[in-house]
Amino acid sequence: MLFSRQLARRPLIRAPRRWTHSPAALAGLKSVTEDDLVHFAHFLPPTSIVSTLSPSAAPSSELESFNNDWMNKYHGRSTTVLKPRTTEEVSKIVKWCNERRIGIVPQGGNTGLVGGSVPIRDELILSLSNMSKIRSFDDVSGILVADAGCVLQSLTDYLAPHNHIVPLDLGAKGSCQIGGNVSTNAGGLRLLRYGSLHGSVLGLEVVLPDGTILDQLTTLRKDNTGYDLKQLFIGAEGTLGIVTGVSILAAPAPQASNNVMLALPKFENVLPLYKETKRQLSEILSAFEFMDRTVYDLAVKHGQGRALNPEDVEGAECFVLVETSGGKREHDEQKLNSLLESLMEADVPLINTGVIATSPAQFSSLWAIREGLTEAVSKEGKAYKYDISVPLYKFQEVVDKTKNHLQEKGLLHEDAVKYVVGYGHVGDGNLHLNVVAAAYTPEIEAALEPFVYELVASYKGSISAEHGIGAMKTHALKYSKNETSIEWMKKIKALFDPNGIMNPGKVLP
Amino acid sequence: MLFSRQLARRPLIRAPRRWTHSPAALAGLKSVTEDDLVHFAHFLPPTSIVSTLSPSAAPSSELESFNNDWMNKYHGRSTTVLKPRTTEEVSKIVKWCNERRIGIVPQGGNTGLVGGSVPIRDELILSLSNMSKIRSFDDVSGILVADAGCVLQSLTDYLAPHNHIVPLDLGAKGSCQIGGNVSTNAGGLRLLRYGSLHGSVLGLEVVLPDGTILDQLTTLRKDNTGYDLKQLFIGAEGTLGIVTGVSILAAPAPQASNNVMLALPKFENVLPLYKETKRQLSEILSAFEFMDRTVYDLAVKHGQGRALNPEDVEGAECFVLVETSGGKREHDEQKLNSLLESLMEADVPLINTGVIATSPAQFSSLWAIREGLTEAVSKEGKAYKYDISVPLYKFQEVVDKTKNHLQEKGLLHEDAVKYVVGYGHVGDGNLHLNVVAAAYTPEIEAALEPFVYELVASYKGSISAEHGIGAMKTHALKYSKNETSIEWMKKIKALFDPNGIMNPGKVLP
Ligand SMILES: Cc1cc2nc3c(=O)[nH]c(=O)nc-3n(C[C@H](O)[C@H](O)[C@H](O)COP(=O)(O)OP(=O)(O)OC[C@H]3O[C@@H](n4cnc5c(N)ncnc54)[C@H](O)[C@@H]3O)c2cc1C
Ligand SMILES: Cc1cc2nc3c(=O)[nH]c(=O)nc-3n(C[C@H](O)[C@H](O)[C@H](O)COP(=O)(O)OP(=O)(O)OC[C@H]3O[C@@H](n4cnc5c(N)ncnc54)[C@H](O)[C@@H]3O)c2cc1C
Repeated sequence: MLFSRQLARRPLIRAPRRWTHSPAALAGLKSVTEDDLVHFAHFLPPTSIVSTLSPSAAPSSELESFNNDWMNKYHGRSTTVLKPRTTEEVSKIVKWCNERRIGIVPQGGNTGLVGGSVPIRDELILSLSNMSKIRSFDDVSGILVADAGCVLQSLTDYLAPHNHIVPLDLGAKGSCQIGGNVSTNAGGLRLLRYGSLHGSVLGLEVVLPDGTILDQLTTLRKDNTGYDLKQLFIGAEGTLGIVTGVSILAAPAPQASNNVMLALPKFENVLPLYKETKRQLSEILSAFEFMDRTVYDLAVKHGQGRALNPEDVEGAECFVLVETSGGKREHDEQKLNSLLESLMEADVPLINTGVIATSPAQFSSLWAIREGLTEAVSKEGKAYKYDISVPLYKFQEVVDKTKNHLQEKGLLHEDAVKYVVGYGHVGDGNLHLNVVAAAYTPEIEAALEPFVYELVASYKGSISAEHGIGAMKTHALKYSKNETSIEWMKKIKALFDPNGIMNPGKVLP
Repeated sequence: MLFSRQLARRPLIRAPRRWTHSPAALAGLKSVTEDDLVHFAHFLPPTSIVSTLSPSAAPSSELESFNNDWMNKYHGRSTTVLKPRTTEEVSKIVKWCNERRIGIVPQGGNTGLVGGSVPIRDELILSLSNMSKIRSFDDVSGILVADAGCVLQSLTDYLAPHNHIVPLDLGAKGSCQIGGNVSTNAGGLRLLRYGSLHGSVLGLEVVLPDGTILDQLTTLRKDNTGYDLKQLFIGAEGTLGIVTGVSILAAPAPQASNNVMLALPKFENVLPLYKETKRQLSEILSAFEFMDRTVYDLAVKHGQGRALNPEDVEGAECFVLVETSGGKREHDEQKLNSLLESLMEADVPLINTGVIATSPAQFSSLWAIREGLTEAVSKEGKAYKYDISVPLYKFQEVVDKTKNHLQEKGLLHEDAVKYVVGYGHVGDGNLHLNVVAAAYTPEIEAALEPFVYELVASYKGSISAEHGIGAMKTHALKYSKNETSIEWMKKIKALFDPNGIMNPGKVLP
């Protein structure tokens, strides 16, 4: 995308604490003590230690942004944040905590949406924010090696003059870190074009739960020498070790980007449109984003981006934002124009109308509609957010069934659930189902869960397409993973982290 | 590619047996007995059992193609091949073998180049060749689900009318199976464009060494629900379990393919040429293949493909084959032509000359030069083949240093080493170093190993870019993987296969 959205952290009004009791995973773990701080001070400078314990005795407000998550939904009570500057320092911290049985929460930009990045109780927070050096970049192969704490936007900025881009882009780019992206296997807006991090991450350096440094930080595009262990840490959400370095294949920067917003008379047209778009735009198609009418109208209402002409979109049931990125502007525009012509000239057109961006400003304002949906929804009320994968043709059905179900429960009115909306990455099969309520209430939650999870499971979908499991969905893992899979995940966890110190209570039930 | 090369299996003249003694991994394992066959006959039809033991008592010639590898370099002495038709049958076989401690070699198309697909002693061979059904294909998402035993070419043929391609292509496509491709993490000719199987394989069904069926055969493009266990089996060469089903993201078929063969005055020009080509062709660049002068001349000598005009290529030190695949022929041709123009018009041109294919026949004959290199080399003598990854700018240095080293050892002459040649996938950093000798001899082997491995290690390269470790390189794994990595591989192996029945003696030292 051409623009970057500043991340406004939500005001710190405490929502009801989620943790009525600590999960069993935390049972045997110890709290950080003053003695531990004395030990850490042997190899860490004072600036790397933030603690409410003596001798640091920082005010607890200094830990607030580390203890609370981006949504302000999950709240930890950690006394201590450590900010090591090197992999060796990380190793020493982890080794000590493993011997002392102190739980550790690895923290990147703390933008995760499932409560994975904050402590459940008073685990030590290990922040990667002091590890933000770029280690190397080779502009022939496109291979970038960076510390895990590099902020995504800073990598993007670094690569720009080298005519390359990070093969990953997401709304949180101004705060999230590459190590956090890897640990959550973040998807985002470029997945359709550049594929998942399992393909583009070439190597990792990881500190294992016993303090061992596993150096698999290769800069080779191909290396078939034994098991690809690094893959286990991609998406492990910090439960198997701490990612300290990342080697990733950057993509050549596209020379031209175009986009168009299309209004469709009915949902049934989305898939034929996707097929036709894929066929005609082929390798330059870089985004195909769906939004239903309700969420589009909310975006317009809250001034997100520039809306299409109201008369033009009358009767439209949903919208699609198509983006192209390619190597030659004339060619890309020709392809996009002939797609639009063929769409408009069809006997039974798949679309009602469309707006093509003709300037960088217009390009941005079309994207702003799509990127502003989260904010628009949050201005309308409290959102229950489900980030799911289902077969493409089920997108609308999921929204409709959820709505009907809430209606049947008598919960679809101004004082309970105001809207049920859907939007997402059609190209990735990823639907963001948002249930917007006047307030978070136990009745609504009970009506939604396990209903939504069961619905997703009935389509063999995923209950978490990109945001992960964190603390939020451990109980729901079973809807997407069978018993054998969960059993084997537990075996892997026990193998790497027999003392259970690494992000305890996250991912596994 | 537009054409498929029939795979002529090499004549079965026995090369000196590699196995002077069995590795320790086989020590505790049992041979298949007649009692075992009786058990297998309870759930397998006679056609699924090929054994020299009674009651089947097949002639040993019937097992020859299973016991010997494609290069005819590795020779097993298995008495029994089983060809199950379903995942459940695979599970029953494996469960029995695990209880009885019988070693199992999973076998796909048996085209692997590192001796991984044949037994070391008399392990049971489990052939996937009877599991070759396509389970589903969704032409909107492009997701294909198939039995592991599907031959790669058959999947390509199946997808063609749906306007999709398998994101993988290799010379062995007429024989190799998708399960074998996944198990070797095969790279091949499309990697530059479509990335590695770690990105494009979406799900796997695997029978674990205790017979458990691990069903992770999802058809979702995005699913962040816990550890991505399937990744461990990609490239595990059958040592962690048997892949029985594969879900893979097929790519939309390109509408147009073009190629051009370029002659370069010197190696130093390869990388600037690669950079410029990447910049100008961008998303339509699908191959950038390098070959040095010597191997090019061998291809010409042995009639592989159609050579360029001899006068035109006088003085050229090396050659590059560039391929484009895109959505619109005119656009692609324009891009390719303007690349060539800018190359020829430069003050100091990077290339001497080039030939652009103007017909499908010419397209094929240019590729035939590149694809015929292996055959040309094998016609010249016995080849020591090293499939390595090194930084791009070291390609020529590796060839030169190896040649000098052999010269110093007095081994560079007609009766010992005749040629040292290099070719490979520049885009992937993957060099095929071939040392062509009059015969395989202990002196040459001693001169080459560990010399080549140490050379590769000195560049932090990979001793096996795509072919894997198999039985051939277990002793050399340490040149590409550090101790910690190997230790953790062993822990993973012990976790999944505590009895060590799964492809014993392969991958791990
Ligand atoms: C506005 C907004 C938009 C978003 N859009 C997307 C999107 O499009 N797609 C998408 O996939 N996600 C999206 N997200 C969520 C996404 O998961 C995160 O933004 C990002 O990937 C997390 O990075 P982080 O550095 O903030 O990690 P954190 O939030 O700090 O941590 C996330 C998890 O990873 C672990 N972790 C972090 N760093 C490390 C490390 N170095 N080693 C080991 N474990 C570590 C943590 O323990 C935690 O479990 C969005 C979030 C916001 C706020
Ligand atoms: C002419 C030729 C060209 C080649 N070109 C390339 C190339 O460009 N790129 C490249 O990467 N490779 C190439 N190869 C080698 C490549 O590894 C294999 O061709 C292919 O991927 C192996 O598939 P297969 O079905 O033949 O597996 P096999 O040879 O049968 O087995 C290979 C390994 O995988 C295991 N295995 C096989 N099937 C399964 C299964 N279902 N479950 C578990 N384990 C299994 C075996 O035990 C063995 O260890 C080439 C080989 C030839 C002969």
